Amino acid sequence: MMNTSAEVFAPATMANLGVGFDILGLALEEPGDIVRAELMDAPGVEIAHIEGDDGKLTRDPAKNTAGVAAASVLRLLSVDRGVRLTLFKRLPLASGLGSSAASAVAAAVAVNAILGYPFSAEQLLPAALDGEAAVSGYHADNVGPCLFGGITLVSGIESTRIRRMPIPTALHLAMVTPDIAVPTAMARSVLPATVPLRDMVRQTAAVARLIDAIYRDDVEAMAQAMESDGIIEPARAHLMPMLAEVRVAAKRAGALAVVISGAGPTLCAICDSEPHARAAAAAMQSVYDNAQIPCVSRSSRVSSRGARVLAAN
Amino acid sequence: MMNTSAEVFAPATMANLGVGFDILGLALEEPGDIVRAELMDAPGVEIAHIEGDDGKLTRDPAKNTAGVAAASVLRLLSVDRGVRLTLFKRLPLASGLGSSAASAVAAAVAVNAILGYPFSAEQLLPAALDGEAAVSGYHADNVGPCLFGGITLVSGIESTRIRRMPIPTALHLAMVTPDIAVPTAMARSVLPATVPLRDMVRQTAAVARLIDAIYRDDVEAMAQAMESDGIIEPARAHLMPMLAEVRVAAKRAGALAVVISGAGPTLCAICDSEPHARAAAAAMQSVYDNAQIPCVSRSSRVSSRGARVLAAN
Repeated sequence: MMNTSAEVFAPATMANLGVGFDILGLALEEPGDIVRAELMDAPGVEIAHIEGDDGKLTRDPAKNTAGVAAASVLRLLSVDRGVRLTLFKRLPLASGLGSSAASAVAAAVAVNAILGYPFSAEQLLPAALDGEAAVSGYHADNVGPCLFGGITLVSGIESTRIRRMPIPTALHLAMVTPDIAVPTAMARSVLPATVPLRDMVRQTAAVARLIDAIYRDDVEAMAQAMESDGIIEPARAHLMPMLAEVRVAAKRAGALAVVISGAGPTLCAICDSEPHARAAAAAMQSVYDNAQIPCVSRSSRVSSRGARVLAAN
Repeated sequence: MMNTSAEVFAPATMANLGVGFDILGLALEEPGDIVRAELMDAPGVEIAHIEGDDGKLTRDPAKNTAGVAAASVLRLLSVDRGVRLTLFKRLPLASGLGSSAASAVAAAVAVNAILGYPFSAEQLLPAALDGEAAVSGYHADNVGPCLFGGITLVSGIESTRIRRMPIPTALHLAMVTPDIAVPTAMARSVLPATVPLRDMVRQTAAVARLIDAIYRDDVEAMAQAMESDGIIEPARAHLMPMLAEVRVAAKRAGALAVVISGAGPTLCAICDSEPHARAAAAAMQSVYDNAQIPCVSRSSRVSSRGARVLAAN
């Protein structure tokens, strides 16, 4: 049974969790992108409108992350009808909050709803990855948590390589996004090509402590482990304005750790309560306010749900 | 209340668990070293006798791993009496089963028993590490599981950096030790000084999957993750005679994975039942038998207990 239209929410995601470069990620409750899909008589994908991107995203469906994902789902079923997409971008672009993944996932889930839900989330993964790949390569570190929700361990691009882990009960996050674009390609280019074996051992130990803490429901140990990254953050820190000051301010406000969200520039404070997360968000915002750097701050819990259909008919 | 003598068992341990180089380890139920300590009127440490080492270990208490650990415990309490040690070496030397750690831990625990148990296992850790350091540097990857038991995550040398994790219910191990010494120093010298960032990401992913599997009680996923080491085993494989053949034989017999125990040459098969572990042990032994390489094979579960006092009076 096909639907004529569907509206889908796909959450912001935070990749890396500090020490878990390229392998760990989580879904936030808010914010998220919304994609509306409408059934067309003609085949193919059309992008009718994009709201909230300041005109920065391409409307060419063959190049737009949502357009590519939508086409990929349609191909799975070889239907002769098409879809018209409207994107409501509520995630800032190139900010380390998984903006392209959210649009790709939302489009894939919306087309699936239009088609009458023939596919599971696992079956939609390749289409969402196709969309993400249109702008940043085949990585599931944002697509995984965006599609499935929760805290995810991503060790490949097949759904069997994506594991959901428990969400520590007390975990609350505070994010601040300064108005400075850090393209993922630049954030990758500053990384070292090789790592001393000794540093690799420290990194594996920190990752192990992080997973252990997640399963033990220990937010304090989780935060400590996340912040123990001795490889990625030192290489990228200079791209993140006032990282040191933001960290100090967040911790004074009660945060347990501050890490770079994805490739940045969003910074994320790990907290053990909602009051601490709110206070940390305000404190981080103050640092940028005082430096006259425009920014947006938020607080959120981890969402156990991934992308979801808001309405379909 | 001092005792006049104490006899202590300290288990063999397996460090690394494949992908967890220098950070993961576990205690076996069998075999283990036994150390007997007797109170002396004179201060200091004396090594009366060592049995089972083929005369290879030094009797100089200032250089022997058990002697150093014993002296270190005595110093903690500044007593004016001494101890006389007898070592029953049941672990092969330089075999990757934590032989030096077992002697150091057994001696520390025995002296603690002689002194009337003034110290907790946590408080004995530095003394055991002193003993281990006499032959192989300050590492807790064998001393940790030997002293505390279970599967341990070791990210430093303080007791707070050693975490015990759950022991998967179905986990059974089979070990084979060929009669070929692989000195730890040589096994370290063949390791690469640096690793490509991409390989580090794969290694952190494998470690994360291993910890995740341990907590989910999933021996099959645990075995897969352990065997995903793309850095240490490739560098050391040539030092382990017939590793490829042993792996094939163990898997034919039902094992899920084969990894190098510590720095080798002991090889360890990961199994999900006692019959599989027994069959894997026999199959691995056959490989060496056919090649006329003397070897010892064993099967064991993980021991939830570390070193323990067998008798004291």
